[in-house]
Amino acid sequence: MKNQFVKYIRNLQDQITSGLEKVDGKAIFQEDIWKRAEGGGGRTRVIENGNVFEKGGVNISEVHGKLPESMQQYFGVTDADFFACGLSLVLHPKNPFVPTVHANWRYFEMYDKFGNIAAQWFGGGQDLTPYYLFEEDAKHFHTVCKNACDTHNLEFYPKYKKQCDEYFHNAHRNEGRGIGGLFFDRLTTSEDMQMSDWYKFVTEVGDSFLEAYLPIVEKRKKLSFSEENRNWQEIRRGRYVEFNLVHDKGTLFGLKTNGRIESILMSLPPHVQWVYNHHPEADSAEEKLIKVLQHPKDWV
Amino acid sequence: MKNQFVKYIRNLQDQITSGLEKVDGKAIFQEDIWKRAEGGGGRTRVIENGNVFEKGGVNISEVHGKLPESMQQYFGVTDADFFACGLSLVLHPKNPFVPTVHANWRYFEMYDKFGNIAAQWFGGGQDLTPYYLFEEDAKHFHTVCKNACDTHNLEFYPKYKKQCDEYFHNAHRNEGRGIGGLFFDRLTTSEDMQMSDWYKFVTEVGDSFLEAYLPIVEKRKKLSFSEENRNWQEIRRGRYVEFNLVHDKGTLFGLKTNGRIESILMSLPPHVQWVYNHHPEADSAEEKLIKVLQHPKDWV
Repeated sequence: MKNQFVKYIRNLQDQITSGLEKVDGKAIFQEDIWKRAEGGGGRTRVIENGNVFEKGGVNISEVHGKLPESMQQYFGVTDADFFACGLSLVLHPKNPFVPTVHANWRYFEMYDKFGNIAAQWFGGGQDLTPYYLFEEDAKHFHTVCKNACDTHNLEFYPKYKKQCDEYFHNAHRNEGRGIGGLFFDRLTTSEDMQMSDWYKFVTEVGDSFLEAYLPIVEKRKKLSFSEENRNWQEIRRGRYVEFNLVHDKGTLFGLKTNGRIESILMSLPPHVQWVYNHHPEADSAEEKLIKVLQHPKDWV
Repeated sequence: MKNQFVKYIRNLQDQITSGLEKVDGKAIFQEDIWKRAEGGGGRTRVIENGNVFEKGGVNISEVHGKLPESMQQYFGVTDADFFACGLSLVLHPKNPFVPTVHANWRYFEMYDKFGNIAAQWFGGGQDLTPYYLFEEDAKHFHTVCKNACDTHNLEFYPKYKKQCDEYFHNAHRNEGRGIGGLFFDRLTTSEDMQMSDWYKFVTEVGDSFLEAYLPIVEKRKKLSFSEENRNWQEIRRGRYVEFNLVHDKGTLFGLKTNGRIESILMSLPPHVQWVYNHHPEADSAEEKLIKVLQHPKDWV
């Protein structure tokens, strides 16, 4: 399973970066291969100052070794070897009418003292963070998510959509980071699902990413925008930073497992503003977004 | 003690905001009075888009009530009433040659079930975050800090200077947030020091703030700067955000005790950049700063 999924995310990284380069039309991904002192490493690919993408990264990593002490409590073990691999991506477009997107698909194994697999699971998802809300874009993104789920189990989409709204919640702001998508974690063997079934599900979601995101980019990338639109985008990006640094378990996991800082924090947006006590005007497009972030909707 | 210190920070807020307005020459502080649902409130004063200060806040708060569950473990109690008050300030100048400054002076009381004081302490300090290092500025700031300490005990400056370097450390970047100053916490009755002695010490540090910071502002505020200087400042401000959201106990305490979000996060800089894998050129002024942040110096 380990080798199969590693092979999958390597290929997926190639597919996604070439799809994004095509839609950008100018910038290409710069690649950094890195090694982790305690075992493993990764292949980080970053795009900057493109026609469409102001900054973004599509990274894979495969790390292994002793589970760091700081993570033992989180996983409820005292001393264990682990393996983790995944693809993680964040794209921050320049145009405020093109949404930011985040996705992640990962696989984790923990071993007993004889080296046998003591626990294993998949996790991941994909979610959209618009600065201006186009309802048809939200519907499109969620429809692709739902279709990927429905092939496997009709209960998956509502369940993982809800988990996504709950996870990407900026509690201290009382609003969602974005308009959600899918989030799942610790997908492991059950009565209905073997690990090989979860592999099929997770890779189906991974395969759906470009279909979920690219049509939205194509539709919005040429819209003209004002300085006010741009300021709003940069203020909202501040909320993105707040979520990632205060609440996101993935980011904190990376910081605590001696991950490569630049690869973890490539998720942070390029230009960001914090304005004291900023509130959009009543009945503006900006306020419309906030209301949806405060009360997640069913899009499909 | 509670009433005495509340009166002190109210006066100090007036002194500091009027001193800063004078050096800015354009912007004035906007005041927001707020109430906390569970008890108490605060007086937030924010300055924006000044000649000198791009954004900053000088806030006081006095809060009380049941110690929130999320903080009980931190304080090692299960059920207690508390009172906390303090002045907290952060100033982000526009000119990259003027350093950012942070200061905080606070007093805390916890009560037993009969309403008697079961614990009480002072905390706080002041620290400087330059974007370009002028050694004479660092020496000036630390000399004022040292003088304020030396009146009380010759061991205080080295002790609280070290604690400052240790506290304002961006562990995941392996560098200090800035060039330090003073940091002290849980100052409580000991053989040598009564609470009234600590009051004298903490207020002496508070009284030294303008003397420590304003001469540096006056000296640097008219220096001309380039777009490159400004980009560097915005990138370094990103590190400031990382520290405040990932490591700072004060910020997390505020977020967990249902503090006023806008007053807590006024500490975040106005314009910020994250650039992937940015490293300053060898032997540049920018690299000189980084080296000092990686290896804190004795300035006095």
